[in-house]
Amino acid sequence: MQVEMQQASVSTPSAREIRIERIFNASRERVWLAMTDPDLVAQWWGRGNKLVVERMEVRPGGHWRFVEHGPDGVYGFEGRYREVTPPERLVNTFEWDGMPGYVSIDTVMLEPLDGGRTRVVNTSLFHTPEERDGMLSAGMEEGLNQSYAALDRLLASIS
Amino acid sequence: MQVEMQQASVSTPSAREIRIERIFNASRERVWLAMTDPDLVAQWWGRGNKLVVERMEVRPGGHWRFVEHGPDGVYGFEGRYREVTPPERLVNTFEWDGMPGYVSIDTVMLEPLDGGRTRVVNTSLFHTPEERDGMLSAGMEEGLNQSYAALDRLLASIS
Repeated sequence: MQVEMQQASVSTPSAREIRIERIFNASRERVWLAMTDPDLVAQWWGRGNKLVVERMEVRPGGHWRFVEHGPDGVYGFEGRYREVTPPERLVNTFEWDGMPGYVSIDTVMLEPLDGGRTRVVNTSLFHTPEERDGMLSAGMEEGLNQSYAALDRLLASIS
Repeated sequence: MQVEMQQASVSTPSAREIRIERIFNASRERVWLAMTDPDLVAQWWGRGNKLVVERMEVRPGGHWRFVEHGPDGVYGFEGRYREVTPPERLVNTFEWDGMPGYVSIDTVMLEPLDGGRTRVVNTSLFHTPEERDGMLSAGMEEGLNQSYAALDRLLASIS
């Protein structure tokens, strides 16, 4: 499938930000659903690894916690929702158990495109440039491309 | 008691930081204990209001959650410990339920002074200048002085 070849476009608009852009072949409503329904998130967020959605309260102030069971170990991620505006904007904090207390603010914007496609722009804001660079060097881009490829497959299956 | 008249010194060393300095009439080990023992924290953090320490795992990666029962309502606060170096340095995230997803990094440094006193310097780093200003205008200084006055009384009682 052509969609699986797509790579996310990663840029650094400021010293403390990472901006990631990706187009999906599905409507904005469907992409929003895949990103906010716990049963659907469990099918793509873990990049093919088993993902346990321990907590996912998609409302302002709600908490989320995902645990990925990979071949090399178990990785927990968690945060809290700041803004929830279906189907266009989701803002939440993001923290990895491996670097506890290092928190980014992730803003996801969904923009409808022609042909029933959707542009997803994810901007992560860190407290310091060093934390931003640490996330980049930790393989964020590769992991995200794997997640998004799994999301492509899921979207194709529920279209 | 003279110690109860003391005010914390508040400054803004950068556009995203608040620095708060305060001297306590107790040894560094005792101040550290009062800040990290859940039973003791419950006696001063709430500024005279009932404080429920729901969670307080003082270790890197551990979570904390305090709920203050004031005359005007119930306020929850939470975060996660990033660094725990007794008795000199404690770093944790800080988030108020009223502004979920707005997270500061609080670094507390304890410095021993002559006469068995301790200087406590708390630096809060926010993601944006606006978040920093919001915290200042929310009455952080007054609340903190009330907490620290209660801490003075607790330290005097356990000395």
